Amino acid sequence: MTRILIIGGSDAGISAALRAREVDPAATVTMAVADAFPNYSICGLPFYLSGEVPDWHALAHRTAAEIEGRGIALLLDHTARAIDPIRRVVAVVDRAGHTHDLTYDRLVIATGAVPIRPRIAGIDLPGVYVLHSMADSFAIHERLTTHAPHAAVIIGGGYIGVEMADALTRRGLTVTLVEQAPAVLTTVDPSLGARVGTELERHGVAVATGVVVEAIGETEGRLTVTGSGGFRAAADLVLAVVGVRPNAELARAAGVELGERGAIRVSRAMETTIEGVYAAGACVETWDRLLWRPTYLPLGTTAHKQGRVAGENAIGGARQFMGSLGTQVVKVFDLAVAGTGLGEDAARRAGFDPLTVEVTVPDHKAYYPGAHDLRIRVTGDRQTGLLLGAQMLGHWQADVATRIDVFAAALFSGMAVDELSDLDLSYTPPLGSPWDPVQIGAHAWLRTRG
Amino acid sequence: MTRILIIGGSDAGISAALRAREVDPAATVTMAVADAFPNYSICGLPFYLSGEVPDWHALAHRTAAEIEGRGIALLLDHTARAIDPIRRVVAVVDRAGHTHDLTYDRLVIATGAVPIRPRIAGIDLPGVYVLHSMADSFAIHERLTTHAPHAAVIIGGGYIGVEMADALTRRGLTVTLVEQAPAVLTTVDPSLGARVGTELERHGVAVATGVVVEAIGETEGRLTVTGSGGFRAAADLVLAVVGVRPNAELARAAGVELGERGAIRVSRAMETTIEGVYAAGACVETWDRLLWRPTYLPLGTTAHKQGRVAGENAIGGARQFMGSLGTQVVKVFDLAVAGTGLGEDAARRAGFDPLTVEVTVPDHKAYYPGAHDLRIRVTGDRQTGLLLGAQMLGHWQADVATRIDVFAAALFSGMAVDELSDLDLSYTPPLGSPWDPVQIGAHAWLRTRG
Repeated sequence: MTRILIIGGSDAGISAALRAREVDPAATVTMAVADAFPNYSICGLPFYLSGEVPDWHALAHRTAAEIEGRGIALLLDHTARAIDPIRRVVAVVDRAGHTHDLTYDRLVIATGAVPIRPRIAGIDLPGVYVLHSMADSFAIHERLTTHAPHAAVIIGGGYIGVEMADALTRRGLTVTLVEQAPAVLTTVDPSLGARVGTELERHGVAVATGVVVEAIGETEGRLTVTGSGGFRAAADLVLAVVGVRPNAELARAAGVELGERGAIRVSRAMETTIEGVYAAGACVETWDRLLWRPTYLPLGTTAHKQGRVAGENAIGGARQFMGSLGTQVVKVFDLAVAGTGLGEDAARRAGFDPLTVEVTVPDHKAYYPGAHDLRIRVTGDRQTGLLLGAQMLGHWQADVATRIDVFAAALFSGMAVDELSDLDLSYTPPLGSPWDPVQIGAHAWLRTRG
Repeated sequence: MTRILIIGGSDAGISAALRAREVDPAATVTMAVADAFPNYSICGLPFYLSGEVPDWHALAHRTAAEIEGRGIALLLDHTARAIDPIRRVVAVVDRAGHTHDLTYDRLVIATGAVPIRPRIAGIDLPGVYVLHSMADSFAIHERLTTHAPHAAVIIGGGYIGVEMADALTRRGLTVTLVEQAPAVLTTVDPSLGARVGTELERHGVAVATGVVVEAIGETEGRLTVTGSGGFRAAADLVLAVVGVRPNAELARAAGVELGERGAIRVSRAMETTIEGVYAAGACVETWDRLLWRPTYLPLGTTAHKQGRVAGENAIGGARQFMGSLGTQVVKVFDLAVAGTGLGEDAARRAGFDPLTVEVTVPDHKAYYPGAHDLRIRVTGDRQTGLLLGAQMLGHWQADVATRIDVFAAALFSGMAVDELSDLDLSYTPPLGSPWDPVQIGAHAWLRTRG
């Protein structure tokens, strides 16, 4: 009977645990979780803070009882301190401060990521927050409900930054969003990022792009954020959301090799450089399906897939993680913005000869009421004709995310842009057109390529 | 300079014409259209009749001027009477009754389908209609606006039948829908068809399933529809929408071989059995990508694809039609119902060992407001594990159609159900879940198969 120990109870950890028990219902699966919140939806935190999800308990994908009901032994508030891969023992500290040794046959490290704290003066002042854990979100919630802040500055215009600009605006705060790049949301091409900026401004967010934040100061309880180009904004709350880095120190100290950007090096089977020790999620490097090499791209969807592979292999399976395309979507006020694969710049940097074509098409036949414009960018390689990536922006109820998923499925299969025409996609006038917008995008690309 | 003549100006014809001109801007492309309505959206007729599209002109995908602007010579109200494939001449009759000979180098037959008129007494009575052409829809519109009918009986619970039940209910009529099968919408499995029936009833439609209509009678200007099991319903308007058959007589008379269900036999290049004569759309048999043989499955999406292939090849190309999966979607009141590939019965008839698993999952994380349940049916082959088809039913704004398109893309690529787990699909809590509903459906199938 294999004893599997999993360190971490978020997306990757829980997926590994569930899969191990699914494959072998006799397996002993123990999960040590550093806090009291296993299997919470980190991606849902902005919606709790916006008030759209009134009760934070709802953010649990599963309750602790449901997890235990699947035969998984749950050790909450148990922080792993050291791994001894020779003796196959992990030392954990419980909430009372006592250390225990947990033995295992197979280990899965799913320690996730930690938020990057920008190295600027004042980052540790009261009222300045990061947002990554339940504890972070409780702290922010406390500030929002007890201090009645009027103004917020958000440092970082990535996914969480734009979501939190939306969330805090919904709560009635005046929000300033600061991004050092020329447009917010650098995960999509600047033409779409600029439109996200416009959407934020349309809802009252002050968007400051091309600004490097230099310091946070405090005067009489109010915070002031200053940056390049004379940027200066006062705030009652500052949120620093500039990305994450892998939480890999525990693994490194145990002798596990690290790879891309300090993330744990893993095989396609999600095994680390130490036999019998698997790792998955935001603490590991991720196989890039398009570039055919490891990268660091922490996403919840990827964590679930990697965890599932790690769990299956820990129990004796032979599954491979099939790679990430970096497929993502974010909702910002009335818009959804999504992408998969390589954008124009990333494709060029990777050595392709990319052509990107942007078209605007209605999400369904314009004669049927309620049509919304979709902006679709298709990136393909001029030489081979292969699809390299796609991005889309449109009304959040115009199937932006699922249409990017059609591109993602095509990309996963290695299709040429031309082959998208052959896909047999559904059509009814209220929901689409005889050539789906995905295919209209492909046709525009082909016409431009000539 | 190749002279291309196209008979028919609907989906297949227009796609062929546009593609021929796109590939060779010097090509002479002439299109003979039997009525005055080229490139109209036949699929949009129910929405004109419902009042959702107030002006029928809006149903044109392109105006005649736009078509001519693409360099296509348009002969409206020109009905083809005979093809002489030896002399490469088509005799057409214009609106004044004069016959002309049109010569060609390559011919594309895109004569579409004609509605099947059930062989029952009274089918030709005034007030009894079919719905396939603009003329049909004008006639029904005339009846609706000048006779102020109160009650309608719709014979046939397929796509157009359920759409028209919705449309006429919206217009304030009392509607009875009669279907001979045990559930409406036999293009999906009965469990979903039954839910469509319930949705119709929830909106006041009387749904009579398992009823074979036997006769339509008339008494003092009112129609009475009678059928098996003592069925009897009075109506001021009767709509017979029981399907279509290929309009292939012109082709047959010219010596072109017919195939499946009397449809024109074509190669994968969309060429008929006569060299230089192509055919596409609802008049031809369609390559079934899953069964690897021709079938008859007329759909607008397929007509566009086949027309595009025919147009490209008529100009000297070498493209193949890659086959149909029968992907379809229909909106009925608040629901969308979609399917791709084989349902349980079709899969069994085709010699597979099908397993179908149905799950109900929210379209996005349930904690975010506005989640709707999706019912997903995944059909796969027990032996090989290959995906055979999928069906989905849910709120029409819950991305049912585009999620079926993800299944369709996977099916197109020949994926196993298990491989759906590997697809890198997008996620944000307001729009999905870390495992997309598509993947949750696949997981349920795998668990059941064991």
